[in-house]
Amino acid sequence: MSEEAMILDGSAKSKEIQDEISAEVEELKEEEGVVPKLSIIFVGDNPASASYIKLQQRICNKVGIESEVVDLPEEISQEDLLDELDKLNNDDEVNGILIQMPLPDHIDDDKVIRAINPDKDIDAFHPYNIGELVIDGDAYVPCTPEGVMELFDRYDIELRGKDVTVVGHSNIVGKPMALLLLNENATVSVCHIDTEDTASYTKESDIVIVAAGVPNLITADMVKEGAIVIDVGINEVDGEIVGDVDFEKVKEKAGAITPVPGGAGPMTIAMLLKDTLKSYKEMLNK
Amino acid sequence: MSEEAMILDGSAKSKEIQDEISAEVEELKEEEGVVPKLSIIFVGDNPASASYIKLQQRICNKVGIESEVVDLPEEISQEDLLDELDKLNNDDEVNGILIQMPLPDHIDDDKVIRAINPDKDIDAFHPYNIGELVIDGDAYVPCTPEGVMELFDRYDIELRGKDVTVVGHSNIVGKPMALLLLNENATVSVCHIDTEDTASYTKESDIVIVAAGVPNLITADMVKEGAIVIDVGINEVDGEIVGDVDFEKVKEKAGAITPVPGGAGPMTIAMLLKDTLKSYKEMLNK
Repeated sequence: MSEEAMILDGSAKSKEIQDEISAEVEELKEEEGVVPKLSIIFVGDNPASASYIKLQQRICNKVGIESEVVDLPEEISQEDLLDELDKLNNDDEVNGILIQMPLPDHIDDDKVIRAINPDKDIDAFHPYNIGELVIDGDAYVPCTPEGVMELFDRYDIELRGKDVTVVGHSNIVGKPMALLLLNENATVSVCHIDTEDTASYTKESDIVIVAAGVPNLITADMVKEGAIVIDVGINEVDGEIVGDVDFEKVKEKAGAITPVPGGAGPMTIAMLLKDTLKSYKEMLNK
Repeated sequence: MSEEAMILDGSAKSKEIQDEISAEVEELKEEEGVVPKLSIIFVGDNPASASYIKLQQRICNKVGIESEVVDLPEEISQEDLLDELDKLNNDDEVNGILIQMPLPDHIDDDKVIRAINPDKDIDAFHPYNIGELVIDGDAYVPCTPEGVMELFDRYDIELRGKDVTVVGHSNIVGKPMALLLLNENATVSVCHIDTEDTASYTKESDIVIVAAGVPNLITADMVKEGAIVIDVGINEVDGEIVGDVDFEKVKEKAGAITPVPGGAGPMTIAMLLKDTLKSYKEMLNK
């Protein structure tokens, strides 16, 4: 029987990053007299969104980044929403803008995404930022895959030439995750709901990254002995938060694994902070 | 012994598209009094580039699209090149702009690419257009992968749920090719120079697309019986143009295959025409 997998501790690494950011913000505050600021547009009152936003604000507060929530009514018109966004786009004190998804059905997401100032688009919704990712340019990257890459980096996990399967091909996780891995010269397969035999890919992979939103999708028989398993799923089952991986069984076989909660999630939030700080520094230099 | 592969005739399909475009241009010319125009920026005098540009111009001429080459000296400064580009960006008579690569070493490609008017960027060099591709939006797509998708479409080749391997991960072919396939819900693996065992991917694939620039890279033992093989490579060997696939042997095993020349190449040029026409129509509607 093999040893248990090493736990890739996203919470600890996130805290490490938060401490680094906190020190840098403190220093910049002394020099500049102002701190970075994140603005979150929140349309409606979805409780899950509300509690996630609270968490983001609490962590911003902890590291000294100012945060504000622009609360907008569910029934806001497309035009009024774009006007609110434009105010943030043009406000010199706002460094990062997040638009909490999902937006109400009567709002055209595509229009809103393309209206964010790319320089403040820290979650890389705008095509310009996502395009820079394809050509390996320097721009914002969606925070969740960015956090996974940061986790690889902080655990010194080499990617070049590794066989990696990404399960899920969403615009905000699966596709950008695949592009980031390709830019590091990993061999990348992307499986999804239409894939005939996902196990045939995951079984041969050195690294499996799952972002499908399906509890227990990845079972122990689907994973190679010693593989690294990154679980980006967040699902609520019987009042508990679980990922997409059968954690208890898979950790007996994998070489390293992220827990849920405490894995990819805290890394995502750390990247929000990091990118807000990055925008602040770039705006200072303009 | 199996039957020989069906030849996917890019030349014939390209001609079909050219005829369609020619008819549409003729009609638009009568209505509008002007024809679409493609401008090609050519820095220096690389003979391979010069002959490819001649070919493009000949085909533009055939379908009634106006083309011009902006010939610039090898030693042109970055600033002067950007000035020339800007003239085309702002010229209402120019619908499509191509920048012939490679550019001289003293020119910063990244700056030039980001300076093209995205509305005229028919080969999708600009991050904005490439980003639209990631989020499955409507914008220009690099012409070579676009041509491969058009070939699939015109041969009624279904992609959803198919296992596809793309060999090569360049910014202008491999990566956009993978994204286009993912947007059609194929399962996509991308192999490249750092891949440990490319054959382990290609052997299991329903479709193999190769854009590596290495003659005979894909041999018969690497291909599944009945697979579809698309050869995007263009290499000169002993004065002959060959692709990346060992065509004679692979065609005994594959179900369908593109020849080189006469496969992906003519489709690329057809897409240039199609996208120039698209830009012309969009500019009319502004």
